[in-house]
Formats: sequence, C-alpha cells, structure tokens
Amino acid sequence: MSGEAKTKDPAIVRRPGGRSARVRAAVYAAVLEELVETGYSRMTIESVAARADVHKTTVYRRWENIDALLTEAIRDSASTPVVPEDTGSLRGDLIAYASELVAVLSGRAGRIIAAALSSDAASVEGVQEIKAMIFETRLPLSTRIVARGIERGEVPEGTDAHEVIDFLTAPLYFRLIVSGGPLDERLARTTGAATAAAVEAGAFRGDDRQADPDRPR
Amino acid sequence: MSGEAKTKDPAIVRRPGGRSARVRAAVYAAVLEELVETGYSRMTIESVAARADVHKTTVYRRWENIDALLTEAIRDSASTPVVPEDTGSLRGDLIAYASELVAVLSGRAGRIIAAALSSDAASVEGVQEIKAMIFETRLPLSTRIVARGIERGEVPEGTDAHEVIDFLTAPLYFRLIVSGGPLDERLARTTGAATAAAVEAGAFRGDDRQADPDRPR
Repeated sequence: MSGEAKTKDPAIVRRPGGRSARVRAAVYAAVLEELVETGYSRMTIESVAARADVHKTTVYRRWENIDALLTEAIRDSASTPVVPEDTGSLRGDLIAYASELVAVLSGRAGRIIAAALSSDAASVEGVQEIKAMIFETRLPLSTRIVARGIERGEVPEGTDAHEVIDFLTAPLYFRLIVSGGPLDERLARTTGAATAAAVEAGAFRGDDRQADPDRPR
Repeated sequence: MSGEAKTKDPAIVRRPGGRSARVRAAVYAAVLEELVETGYSRMTIESVAARADVHKTTVYRRWENIDALLTEAIRDSASTPVVPEDTGSLRGDLIAYASELVAVLSGRAGRIIAAALSSDAASVEGVQEIKAMIFETRLPLSTRIVARGIERGEVPEGTDAHEVIDFLTAPLYFRLIVSGGPLDERLARTTGAATAAAVEAGAFRGDDRQADPDRPR
C-alpha cells in the first residue's frame, strides 16, 4: 500500500520539488486523462508517455506496468479528503458534506472515478484497494458528524456512522455510475435532508432493529 | 429497442417454443455466463458458441456481433420487474420493495449487472439504453407506492416518486458496484425504513425546497 513510485534512484524521491516530481505529476495527469478519454483497455505506457511529453523509457523505468502507474495516480488524486464544516445542525452538516462530495464528483475526480469503476480498470487489484481505502477514510468524518448530532440531542444514541455515510453518499455514486442523473446542488440538499430525517427517526440505530415488530422471524 | 433476435427466417420467431427458442435461450445464458466468468473484454462469439454448445456459424447468422448479442441477452434477463405487494404501510411497502431488489441483486442478475456496469461493457450503447429502460420501468411501481401512502395520509402531497425510488435503490447498487458490502435483509430493512422516514418528513417534496430557509441564494 506504499504510495511511492518505483524508482532505481532513491535520491529522486528525496527531492519532491525537483524534476522527478514534475515528471511524476505529468505522468499521473497523463494516465488519468488517458483513462477518461481513451479508456482503460486501449491506453498503453506509450500513449501515456506521449501525452505527458516524456520518453517512454522514463515511464518504464519508474513503473512496473500500466496498472501500477494507474493505481498510484488514482491514489494520488484521491488523497484530498472531503472535510465537512460544523454548521450547527445535523441536517446542515449532512447537506454540507453532500455538497462538497457533489462538487468533487461533478468535476475531474468524478470523471476519473466513473472511468475507473465503469471499465475493466475496476478489476485492477490496486484500484479495488483504493476503493476500500476511500471508504475507510470517510468513516471518521461521518463519526464526527454523528457525534456532534448526539451532543446536540438531534441524533439517537447508537446511530451507526458507517450506515449514515453509506446512505448519504450512495445516491451521489448512483447518479455518477448507474443512472447518469445530474450531480447538482439540488441532489446534495435532497440527500442531506433525507439522510438527516432518517437519522433523526432512528433508522440507523442497529439496536432498534432487534426490537422491531415488523422484523421477519 | 426491439427485443427480437436478428434472423433471416421470420418463421423461426413465430415458433417461440421450437428449436430456435432453445438455441436463443442457450446462447443468452452462455453470453451472460461469459460476461460474468470470463469478462467482457475477453469473451468472443466463439467462446459463447462453445459454452452454449452450438456451432459458431449459428451465432454469427443470428447476431451481428457480440455487443448486439450481449445487449439482447441482458434485456431478456432484465425483463422481470420487481413488483411490491401492498403491505398496508409506506414503511412496509418500501421494505418489501427493497427486499425483492436485494434478492434479485444478490443472485445471478446481480452478478450480471455488476459485470456489465463494472467493465468496458458499460460503454456498449445497447447496455446504456437498457440501464435507462430499467430505471423507467421502476417509476410506475414507485408511483403506486407513493400514491398509496398519500391515500393513507402517511406521505406528504407533492412527493416525487422518482426521487423516492432513487433513494431506495441507490444504497443497494452502491453495495453491488462500489463498496462491495453485503446485500442482505438487514440492508433492505434499513434502506426501506430510512427512505420511509425521509418521505414522511417531506424530504422528497420538490415544492418544499423552494421555501427552505437554508437554501443558498
């Protein structure tokens, strides 16, 4: 799970602002553009090198193969977490979170994610690891939002932060990857408000389900 | 958008129980198994014919290419709608709907959908048309559930059935395609209960959002 480039010269890694970093940034950008525009199955080390305007041997020297390069580039692009502000209410916090994620998914990152998940790239082992990593990254943010809501008395004790973040983000990914509907502010507000209403009604309390009279036996 | 096989002999189509129908069923099953097990990019008319135990010329004669065959087979497999029962409550209806969809997505159809949407098959034009068709198919069911809820006095007037069905189904597709979490009865119950709470709170009333004091200007 190391994010470092494979390189034969460790000195290159030690100078993050130098030529090596510029080459790496150019190659990362090129492989992601190739993924989005050319598609996973047709892109090659050669096409990536040409787009980055570097010699193909430069790419071959640093990355074992196209999957290793793609995995690194996606991990690098996904490294900025979506941090929600404290708006003073659960509903406001969830709408703020959804708005930031809508902004991310409706831009370049969304095109990368859609291209990675809706193509054979989704089967690349490294890409699957990154998916898991991204969802783990989100959990602490959701936990903080839920904890603030409990402190305010808006959120029932025992609410599962993992389920809350799943429900908040699922409709956004659904539009991005499945239905193709608009990723806009209206979606962020509806999703945030709907999730807040469900949380406040206790829909994500694991222990509540045990005593549920409708529960099948 | 015709679901018929391309055939040079119209008489074949007129005898749905005959040899032609058996061949078609075998080839449909084979192409979907190839999609799931071999993957879209590596499957060929030859590999499909071998799996279906028919001569490859039989397949070539009836289908223009592998994409046309795959599109038809997916459309055929997707033709059974998920019909919810009237359980007497909005919450019950939504849980019943989610349960049926969980049963579908956790079985063979789910493997087909995941393979189709998480591979280069997602870019096939026919597959994109089917996606749109499936979501249109669901809308009348959702509309009936929402209408029953309004009659019972549980659901605010003006609730958008399209948004309701999106929110009910998104967490299921999210687990199938993005997060890989379990598609089980617990998910169906949580999703149904959460969506019902959001509907009852008026989260899917388009007109409500207009008067919302938190709405950004």
